[in-house]
Amino acid sequence: MAEVFTRDKRVRFQHCDPAGIVFYPQYFVMIHELMEDWFTEALAEDYAALVRDKGIGMPAVKVEAEFLAPNPLGDVITFELTVAKLGASSVTLRVEGKARGKPCIRASAIIVHSSLNPLKAQPFPEALRTRMERFVAA
Amino acid sequence: MAEVFTRDKRVRFQHCDPAGIVFYPQYFVMIHELMEDWFTEALAEDYAALVRDKGIGMPAVKVEAEFLAPNPLGDVITFELTVAKLGASSVTLRVEGKARGKPCIRASAIIVHSSLNPLKAQPFPEALRTRMERFVAA
Amino acid sequence: MAEVFTRDKRVRFQHCDPAGIVFYPQYFVMIHELMEDWFTEALAEDYAALVRDKGIGMPAVKVEAEFLAPNPLGDVITFELTVAKLGASSVTLRVEGKARGKPCIRASAIIVHSSLNPLKAQPFPEALRTRMERFVAA
Amino acid sequence: MAEVFTRDKRVRFQHCDPAGIVFYPQYFVMIHELMEDWFTEALAEDYAALVRDKGIGMPAVKVEAEFLAPNPLGDVITFELTVAKLGASSVTLRVEGKARGKPCIRASAIIVHSSLNPLKAQPFPEALRTRMERFVAA
Repeated sequence: MAEVFTRDKRVRFQHCDPAGIVFYPQYFVMIHELMEDWFTEALAEDYAALVRDKGIGMPAVKVEAEFLAPNPLGDVITFELTVAKLGASSVTLRVEGKARGKPCIRASAIIVHSSLNPLKAQPFPEALRTRMERFVAA
Repeated sequence: MAEVFTRDKRVRFQHCDPAGIVFYPQYFVMIHELMEDWFTEALAEDYAALVRDKGIGMPAVKVEAEFLAPNPLGDVITFELTVAKLGASSVTLRVEGKARGKPCIRASAIIVHSSLNPLKAQPFPEALRTRMERFVAA
Repeated sequence: MAEVFTRDKRVRFQHCDPAGIVFYPQYFVMIHELMEDWFTEALAEDYAALVRDKGIGMPAVKVEAEFLAPNPLGDVITFELTVAKLGASSVTLRVEGKARGKPCIRASAIIVHSSLNPLKAQPFPEALRTRMERFVAA
Repeated sequence: MAEVFTRDKRVRFQHCDPAGIVFYPQYFVMIHELMEDWFTEALAEDYAALVRDKGIGMPAVKVEAEFLAPNPLGDVITFELTVAKLGASSVTLRVEGKARGKPCIRASAIIVHSSLNPLKAQPFPEALRTRMERFVAA
């Protein structure tokens, strides 16, 4: 059974549009935060240190999202992250979000373990890859 | 032959991440601007007035994007917008972006013509639909 | 002795600029979050419900900030909020932030208790005003 | 007589909050854009190249703003930039914005000509300083 990484994110004033609901690019900002949390809290790889000290980042090469229900200001979105596919230097994340018991977002993102300067894919270190494997969904 | 709606957007400091390139959620902000421009400048439907005075918006229900090449600060991205599919109350936009002569982003977004309060799909008015038809790619 | 409202905010990828430090407008986004937290958690006035259900907001009419030291990705900023001045419908917030034991930001904001539609100052309800008084610095 | 650098910025969906008006941190994003335009278009110093190629930035050390009237979606804000004070490595910008003929924002920002890595003030090159002098208000 795959592990699921779960975090709650609150919809803030900054996320909302004139209709009082999340402006959709902000969902990707939340999903990026979720990915940062996953690295730092579940993969024993401090995301900030990765970028700052090791010059490594996780740029996205492809993303998809379905917005299933609007999220007004104050909603708490419970995000679940699993791994749909794990490659040598890339990983496909699957993210589902629920608020008030109902699905509101379903997304996927292919991100690549890359040196930032120059921007170039780098194989995952073995230890990191092993820790990611626990989250691979069947 | 379908018409193509084209606009240039400059990569600003605000769009860039610690690697000095566009942070991917910001591409969707640019694509939203492009859609606003399309309504206001090509469809004779002032986007701001639509939201402000008519209580109508164009929320996205599904988006996809591929990031083909990074865009550093200062890049000018030439965006092209066409319509992949035109429904009764929804439209699938196709967006391609190039910078320095090379493709950098390819995206699509399904957006829905909706009343904002309550949020509910509304058929396109006939005149607006007719103006959109010119942009439907074969 | 005035009470101090304290919350930690982590510097995220989304906050950072090409120099790898917080882009200064993002400090104001963090300060807005802090104000939301203060209302919801310390003033017994759920900020989201205030906006959503009562049509009340807290627009800023004047802000000032000094940026004392840069905050790189991963910094945890400990923000302290007190009230410098409490008026009939406005309140002057004083915010200080520290990271790694050193001051990084000092800011103030005058915000006004307002109906949102139309935008018009409204006196604080007595109960809310009383709860704010505990935070007035001598 | 001081020269005034003027640019129009349109209020976009991305700038607006649930009240349908500019969320105040977004004014600072617009003011940063204005400063980028000033460097690139009036000071003959391409802002993007400055950051990207020379490793120079203009971080703010102090900002102030008064929000005089709300700006709804679609407003075109005419910004005027002058220099209030010109130092060896810092400059105090004065920014005024009007929309529909009425003042909506008045702001100032002290920004410092700095190397980015490490972050350290650097005297303005003489040619750049000379070009800035034209904008010093009496």
